This record gives sequence, C-alpha cells and structure tokens, in this order.
Amino acid sequence: MTLNELAPEALADLAAKVRAEYEELQARNLKLDLTRGKPASEQLDINNELLALPGENFRAKDGTDCRNYGNLKGIADIREIWAELLGLPVELVYAGDSSSLNIMFDLVSWSYIWGNNDSERPWKDEEKVKWVCPVPGYDRHFTITETLGFEMINVPMLEDGPDMDAVRELVKDPQVKGMWTVPVFGNPTGITFSERVARELAEMETAAPDFRIVWDNAYAVHVLGNKFPEVINVLELAEQAGNPNRFWFMSSTSKITFAGAGVAFFASSAENLAWYTAKAGVRGIGPNKLNQLAHAQYFGSAEGVRAIMRKHAASIAPKFQSVLEILENRLGEHGVATWTRPEGGYFISLDVVDGTAARVVELAREAGIALTEAGSSFPLHEDPDNRNIRLAPTLPPVEEVEVAMDGVATCVLLAAVEKLGV
Amino acid sequence: MTLNELAPEALADLAAKVRAEYEELQARNLKLDLTRGKPASEQLDINNELLALPGENFRAKDGTDCRNYGNLKGIADIREIWAELLGLPVELVYAGDSSSLNIMFDLVSWSYIWGNNDSERPWKDEEKVKWVCPVPGYDRHFTITETLGFEMINVPMLEDGPDMDAVRELVKDPQVKGMWTVPVFGNPTGITFSERVARELAEMETAAPDFRIVWDNAYAVHVLGNKFPEVINVLELAEQAGNPNRFWFMSSTSKITFAGAGVAFFASSAENLAWYTAKAGVRGIGPNKLNQLAHAQYFGSAEGVRAIMRKHAASIAPKFQSVLEILENRLGEHGVATWTRPEGGYFISLDVVDGTAARVVELAREAGIALTEAGSSFPLHEDPDNRNIRLAPTLPPVEEVEVAMDGVATCVLLAAVEKLGV
Repeated sequence: MTLNELAPEALADLAAKVRAEYEELQARNLKLDLTRGKPASEQLDINNELLALPGENFRAKDGTDCRNYGNLKGIADIREIWAELLGLPVELVYAGDSSSLNIMFDLVSWSYIWGNNDSERPWKDEEKVKWVCPVPGYDRHFTITETLGFEMINVPMLEDGPDMDAVRELVKDPQVKGMWTVPVFGNPTGITFSERVARELAEMETAAPDFRIVWDNAYAVHVLGNKFPEVINVLELAEQAGNPNRFWFMSSTSKITFAGAGVAFFASSAENLAWYTAKAGVRGIGPNKLNQLAHAQYFGSAEGVRAIMRKHAASIAPKFQSVLEILENRLGEHGVATWTRPEGGYFISLDVVDGTAARVVELAREAGIALTEAGSSFPLHEDPDNRNIRLAPTLPPVEEVEVAMDGVATCVLLAAVEKLGV
Repeated sequence: MTLNELAPEALADLAAKVRAEYEELQARNLKLDLTRGKPASEQLDINNELLALPGENFRAKDGTDCRNYGNLKGIADIREIWAELLGLPVELVYAGDSSSLNIMFDLVSWSYIWGNNDSERPWKDEEKVKWVCPVPGYDRHFTITETLGFEMINVPMLEDGPDMDAVRELVKDPQVKGMWTVPVFGNPTGITFSERVARELAEMETAAPDFRIVWDNAYAVHVLGNKFPEVINVLELAEQAGNPNRFWFMSSTSKITFAGAGVAFFASSAENLAWYTAKAGVRGIGPNKLNQLAHAQYFGSAEGVRAIMRKHAASIAPKFQSVLEILENRLGEHGVATWTRPEGGYFISLDVVDGTAARVVELAREAGIALTEAGSSFPLHEDPDNRNIRLAPTLPPVEEVEVAMDGVATCVLLAAVEKLGV
C-alpha cells in the first residue's frame, strides 16, 4: 500500500519505524560514497596489460613513427577499430587525446569565439545563445554551456529519448544553437534513444543554420548484459536529411580502458572535421599517438573491445542488480519513488517524492552516505521538482553498494513521511 | 673580401662560378628537408625504455591509482622533478597532457572569452588587443594571436633578449595585453635572455593590469654542450616586483622524451593557477596521469633528465657544428649573411642579404632542398626585411645536413649576386 493510501495510524507506525531505522543507520558511522561515475579497481585491472604498451613497437601500420610530432586526425590503427565499433566511415572518425569532454568544450567555445562552419557570425556576437538540455542529463555538459553564459532550456526525457515535440518547437528559435545528448545508456537515466528519435533529430528543421547536436556516445558499448545496442549512424541519417553538419559525435575509451588516460574520438561530417582541424591545428600539433597505438595494439579489433566490455559487465552488473533489488524491496510498495532500470551505462536515476530530493541527500550525508547533490543532473543544478537523485554504483564494492542503498532507501522513506508531516 | 668590395670583373667571375655551382646542385636531384624542429629517430631511440612504462606500477607515490579519473594539477611525482629542474616551488608547477602549446592556446583564448584573473573585462570586449612579439620568434605563438585577431607588434631581439626599451614603451598602452617569449635557446635565434632582461620584464610597469608574458621555456635544458643554462625563477622576480601574476611559465618534455607524447607543464602564481584550474575543470576532469607517472618513473630525478639531455646533445651537436662550419666556410668571406651560434635549442637563425630570403628559399626548393618559408618567424609571416631564414638541423642525418647546407650556401650567394644585378 502506498503511503498516501495508508490509514493515519498505519502511517504513524511506519514513520516511527523509519525513524528508528534512520537512528540505527546513523549509529553505524558509515563512510560510503555513491557520487561519481568512476570504474572500480577491479574493472581497471582488466586492462593492466595495456600499461606496458606499446613497448618497442612504436610504428603505426602505415609506418608512422608515433614517437614524433604530427597527425591531427590520429592514427588509422585506432580510428579503424572505432569506426567499425560505431558503424561509421573511418574517414569521418578522428582520434584525439584522452578526453572527449575536452573536445566538446573546444567545439562549443570555438563556435563562441569564431562561429562554426555554418555560422553567420561568432556566437559571442549573438544577442543570446540558447541550448536544448534534455533532463535529467550530464552535469559536465551543462557546466560548459553555463560557463559560456548560454540560456539552457530543459526538455523532459521520455522512455526512448527527449520529448521530440518540445525539441522541434524550441529549434524554431534561431537563438537555439545546439543541444546536449547522451544517446545510449544516458547519464543519469540509462535511457537509449530510439531509431525514431535519432532520425527525427537528424531530420528536424532548425532556424539556426549552425545548430549542432552534441551526440555524446560515451556509453556506446557499455552494456550490463551480453547484448550490444544497435548502432545508429546518425551522420548518415543527417546527410540523407540534408543536414550533413548536424552532429558532433563523441566517443571515448575512458570507461573501457583507463579513466582519464584513454583515447577520445570525434566523428562528424567532412566539413565539420575540416573546421575543427583548422582550429585544433592552431591549438597544437597533434594528439598523443603512442597512447593511440598502445590502445590499438591492446584492442586488436572491434570484437576485442566488446570482449573487454563483457568483462566490465561481469564486474558491475551485480552492483546495478543490488541497487534495483533494494529499491524494489524497500520502496516498491510505498509509492515514494520511481527509478530507471538501465541495460548499460554507469547510472541509475532515482526520482523520490517531489520536493524531497535535497532532504534525502542531506539525510544520507548525515548518515555517512555521500550521494550526488540533488539537482546535479539539471542545468544550474536546479531540479524544478526537487525529486531527482543520480546513483552511481560502479566504484564501491558490491557489499558497500548494498549497505549504502539500504541506507538511501531509509532516507527516501524518512523524507517522504516528513513531507507528509507525520 | 665581401661582395660589395669586389671589383666588377671579380664579381662577375664569382657570379658565374655560383651559377655553375647552382646548376650542378640542381642536377643532383636532391630531396632534403631542413624545415621542422623535430627530433631525429636516433634521439627518440634514447627513450625507448619509456615505451613500456608504467607497467604494473600504476600508483603515484601518494597512493593515487593513476588509472582512474581526477587531479587537475597532475601528480606530484612528475611535478616535483620538474620543479627542481626549473628551480620553482612545486606547488606552483602543474603537469598536464602532452602539449604546452595547447595550454598556451587555452590561456590566451580563455582570457579572450572571460578575461583572466586581473581583467576588468573579457579581452573580446576590448576595442583592440595588442601583443608584443619579439622577432624573429616562434611561428606557432604568432598563429595563436593572429587567429584571435590581436594586433601583433614586432620588437627586435638583441643579443640577450628583446629590446627592453621598446618593450617598456609598448606596455604603456593599456591595449597591450601580453607578450610571447622563448627565453632560453629561443626559436629560432638560440638566444637566451639575460638575468637583467628577465628582471626588467618582471619589474616593468604595464598599463594593462591583466598583462601576461608567456614565458615559453621550451628549451630550458636543451643544451648542445655540457653546461646547463642558469635557472631564473621569474615567478619569484615578479612577485618581489609586486607583479606576481605576470608570467605564464611553460615547459614540456616534448623534445626530451617523445615529441607530442610527453608531459607539458604550466607554472605560475597561485592566483593564476586557480583561475586556470577553474576553467580547465570545466573543460575536463584532468590530464593523463599514467603518462605522467611513466615519465616520473623513467626520469627518476632532475639529474635523470639532464643525463638524457646530454645524450640528445651528443646526437645533435655535430649537426649544428656542420651547419656553422659550412656557413663560415662558404659565406664567411662574402659578407652576404650573418647567423646565430646557439649553445642549445633546435634552430639556427640565418639572415641573408636584405630582400633575398624568399628568393633563397625558392632557389633551394628548386634544387630539392626544403627550407622553412621566408617570413615564418614573424607575425603574419611578414619579415619586413625579407632576410630571415630558420634552419632546423636536428631531423636529418648529419650527412644530409651537410649536403643541404652546402646547397643553401650556394643559394644565398646566388640570390645575393642576383640582387646586385650581376
């Protein structure tokens, strides 16, 4: 029976029980952390072989000495593997340094300074720049557009991607210059965009000729089971729709090999790549090719990458399973929360009773359980309903995830009964 | 006897001889390249041990797992070595990814977007931004300020650094926001700034409160002999002078270990570092710590770095020696050129007869010898005297350097006699 359906006495009994549980929780002096989407040591261990590569084999297969300067596109050895994995033509996939977030920041900030290849003027010279932000979404995306002073407009995430009616309406405004997305196993919802949504994003008319969708495919192959998601070639969809420059397509090995020491990828139309490269060639001489070569040697092939992802799944799927089971067992009957059930990615998105997310995070903190701050998955950290909490279960051992989540469930219930004034 | 002192018949004889030599040169169908300041394979081989590092030892000495996310400052292991090498306090030395040019671009372009920590407004909102450019200088520096639309003002390089009277005069203009320098074994002159010049740069009054000197110490330890240059702590000089935020101090291992795959460093005042880190933390999560750790393990200490530099010197000093000997033997008596005699760095700067540099490069190209384009070491590629040529002798084997330089000498002479109308 949900809290709202309980008779007053039953509700009072439950409240007393929850308060007692919370006191017990505090007494345990826990120090647990579910805040960051970091891989666990056990996952990193999967790739230790990479730590000694490339060894003496410092030449790319075209003969390039990767120890010397040059090549803004990155070496073909790794670009070919990634192109196959993402279902894209290799000539449209560039390999960079370790961080795709770096590349996204550069793309947006360079558009601000100079305009992009379809801009009538630099974005800094626009009266206002607006940006479509499906919510909840990735906090670091929103921080980039916040730092540049863009007006961020929330669009709700539905089951198979953002609300496309809302998006189509927004992009009629020429001040709307772009949109953040995490199309596969999204952060924090775990939602994967359907082929329909991808197609509609590729096809929709936008008032701004220089409108861009950051297609941050950070979790393209990050499954929890054995089934890899369908690969959607949005670059082709966009070209067929007459919008060839619509997507800035990002990917990286950060949560495949080593976080912060992997290889990032930027795929886009030839025109977009030429624009990017012209600026990147002013910023520097080229990415770390030795790290790219080491990765290519280590993966061997696209199938090599998938084999590694199966090992990651074996490590983290039990943690996700624990979270879901505890949420169901502790909260399922009370109608105080809903949550996503991702088949991949790094997060579970938990919606608690409206108006109580910040209180849940506070209660958890006071019981020694660190949760990502309420509102973190929204532009300006403002969750209009104060209900969303991002759970990141990958880093701690499964036993800690269980203890932490049981505690979180208590906090969710306590905040809910507090809200009811019981 | 110089060309100008020769009697008409003697000059005609010399011209005929030079033309014959040039014809012979062309007949050899050479394909030689003195354009880029790249290390030779032999130099890269010095460091092959690094290619298998860090191996299984993935923890920094403070226990950090370098395989995971985090740490915008870089790991202490490598920062301590570099701080000792540069004579700077470790807390003011941050370690980044592979390219210091990347960091310079970010510093300047972020000042453009947001202003730096001493700006009254973003540089984009200034009516005009001007930049002091000692010439000849590093082409990639000038390209950054060109791309941002800054007005670049040439200042001549003297024997121990830029003409400080000229610099002091220029910085009275509040639109002058910064200055490029390569203070040790400069590109392309090989000139090292004296302690007096460093002190005057630290002490001079500038009208702009947010004026910055990019102190690009790219060749800090890149000697051709055994004697390492005196380390000047410009950060301390600036602080003592009441201008603590004056210098953005850059360094990297690019020409110590692997070009484009090393570790770059940014040293500055605590305030400057805090400003940089606030923006860098929006751009990304942190640099590649595994590469930093591998470098720290490989170097071991500051003395370890110097030992590597002695090996580089053994490889490239003979090439510099060849260039200088051929210039002296072929051109010394004719008064058609002057050149620098660097004790370190990657370049020799050659000044030919005024108005003939572009012709020399053209003649060389037609004889199969690629030289850096005339004017490359000047803002907008405009050498007002059309006389400077940058020679980069490190990449080819010494035999090729000799053949190429002998050919270049012929081209210098031919252009000179052409200029005299002989």
